[in-house]
Amino acid sequence: MNARKKPPAPGTTTVTEVAKMAGVSVSTVSRILNGSARVADDKREAVEKAIAALNFKPNLFAQSLKRGSSMTVGVLVQAVESPFFNETLRGIEDALSGTGYAPLIVSGHWNANEEAERIRLLSARRVDGLILLSGHLDDEEVIAFSEHLPIIAAGRRLESPRAASLRLDNVEGGRLATRHLISLGHTRIAHISGPADHIDAVERLSGYRLALEEAGLAFDPGLVVQGDFREGGGLLALNQLLDRGHPFSALFASNDQAAYGARLALYRRGIRVPEDISLIGFDDLPSSSYTTPPLTTIRQPVYEMGCQAARALLSLIAGKSVSLELPPLELVIRETTQRLR
Amino acid sequence: MNARKKPPAPGTTTVTEVAKMAGVSVSTVSRILNGSARVADDKREAVEKAIAALNFKPNLFAQSLKRGSSMTVGVLVQAVESPFFNETLRGIEDALSGTGYAPLIVSGHWNANEEAERIRLLSARRVDGLILLSGHLDDEEVIAFSEHLPIIAAGRRLESPRAASLRLDNVEGGRLATRHLISLGHTRIAHISGPADHIDAVERLSGYRLALEEAGLAFDPGLVVQGDFREGGGLLALNQLLDRGHPFSALFASNDQAAYGARLALYRRGIRVPEDISLIGFDDLPSSSYTTPPLTTIRQPVYEMGCQAARALLSLIAGKSVSLELPPLELVIRETTQRLR
Repeated sequence: MNARKKPPAPGTTTVTEVAKMAGVSVSTVSRILNGSARVADDKREAVEKAIAALNFKPNLFAQSLKRGSSMTVGVLVQAVESPFFNETLRGIEDALSGTGYAPLIVSGHWNANEEAERIRLLSARRVDGLILLSGHLDDEEVIAFSEHLPIIAAGRRLESPRAASLRLDNVEGGRLATRHLISLGHTRIAHISGPADHIDAVERLSGYRLALEEAGLAFDPGLVVQGDFREGGGLLALNQLLDRGHPFSALFASNDQAAYGARLALYRRGIRVPEDISLIGFDDLPSSSYTTPPLTTIRQPVYEMGCQAARALLSLIAGKSVSLELPPLELVIRETTQRLR
Repeated sequence: MNARKKPPAPGTTTVTEVAKMAGVSVSTVSRILNGSARVADDKREAVEKAIAALNFKPNLFAQSLKRGSSMTVGVLVQAVESPFFNETLRGIEDALSGTGYAPLIVSGHWNANEEAERIRLLSARRVDGLILLSGHLDDEEVIAFSEHLPIIAAGRRLESPRAASLRLDNVEGGRLATRHLISLGHTRIAHISGPADHIDAVERLSGYRLALEEAGLAFDPGLVVQGDFREGGGLLALNQLLDRGHPFSALFASNDQAAYGARLALYRRGIRVPEDISLIGFDDLPSSSYTTPPLTTIRQPVYEMGCQAARALLSLIAGKSVSLELPPLELVIRETTQRLR
């Protein structure tokens, strides 16, 4: 005999067995499972004990078919390996936890055709709703999809009865970053921009220009160089910038990954951060607390964005109205920026 | 009239409409969709054109119910935000791409009860198979689950008719890292270990001891300090190590995240890497190419592990036998290690 009795495998126990063990009727078990009616505490306790002892798991698949719902939520990210999306995914996961909904995550790889293909795939799998994180699809197409599927789109601004969006103020973020450098006495401030077709990147550049203008500093196009929101692009951009020979004492990188690449390029040339160049990023990725030195940056509430998106989607699915309000962007001062000497 | 005609939304076109447009029978369309029989090239072409024009998407959900399959594969990770798991997820996603299977990703958060709960959830959702990435569940329990669900378990060694595992040789990895430091003339080599209950961490420590022994170097317990596989733990561990006052010229961190933390602790104390201390990590996370200086490390084929796991699972689901062979661990020499001066 086996000393340690294995619990029955999931799916092999029936509601009838649970009812029998708990000494209640099948309909009582059913009501507890559905949370649809009040049940006496002692009965509830007996049923919960029986469920645990029997390792009972209701057949969600069959249940959801009856309700016409699959209890899954599609999440379209752009790169499942991106540190930026990870934090948002964690927020989505935490907000869905305990709701019965599970996220079905797919990646669009920054390609509008692939994004549309993946949404059709999710739609064919009968997800109950969709969270879109960024991407290259036209707003018009997103709204067309939303006619069949409630959608929360992060990184967009769109309105439709079955879609809502949440988007941070990237102009304000770029302004905040640049103002911090200006407040430290810097006047020659370079910028590594993000992809020219990425709205966040365009807005951060606008914020940079706005802050310069507000401070009465001239905008020098020679101090702006194109990156790609990734480390490799940041490294190349910084090298290009240095090769141009325009002097600068501070650098605003359009995201933290670009800042990491720029940091390495500076290290390779023996330029110290922050003694020779002050550096600020954008995002506040978890690893930005552990770069050497730790990175000053603009914190995007990416985790909160995930939580809000998931909660808002559940509201849309339930046919409720949705109001989205994100905490503001925040300047996080660490050790890569210092007063101009 | 709208100049730009929208394609019909997915799910609104029927097989009959596709057949009509292509001028073939419904059963021909069906055969092409299922890939079950040879069809003349011109008919196939006509059907493919009609599918594209009508934006036709077969109802996978209904199809899969008929086949008793949901065309989803569960993936249990430990932390959806961990850079280590991300690369494996990317491998799984790439290998599943084009197969019709979609991954359903959930997180166990390094907690055996939560892991079992999530597996039951996936099982209730009728996933066709499961990929387990690491975790705290007993092997016995994993095998019990596999009786109902084919499982590929990464980071374990277990054998059962419906489960297969793939695991890297972490003893060899720890040995490789330590031998690299010894080859550079280091004899006082410290080690930040990982969690004591994590088999990978235990094996890496064994590899470290093995390499010392092979080189005739005495093992000094005062040079080993406990970390937690995360940056914060690495930082604390390094501080503890320095406070002990045992001199050392090289450090083997049990993973890259611990190495990042240790790197920051050294920076804070003004200790240079690699001039004063040589540092080697383990994993080769994508960001390890962009630390300052770039990190010497042991490359784990985590992406390939994801690909292999996914392919092996599809074989198990198809009732085929599975053979798993991973590329070996590899020493990646960057700029944090140098010859002892």
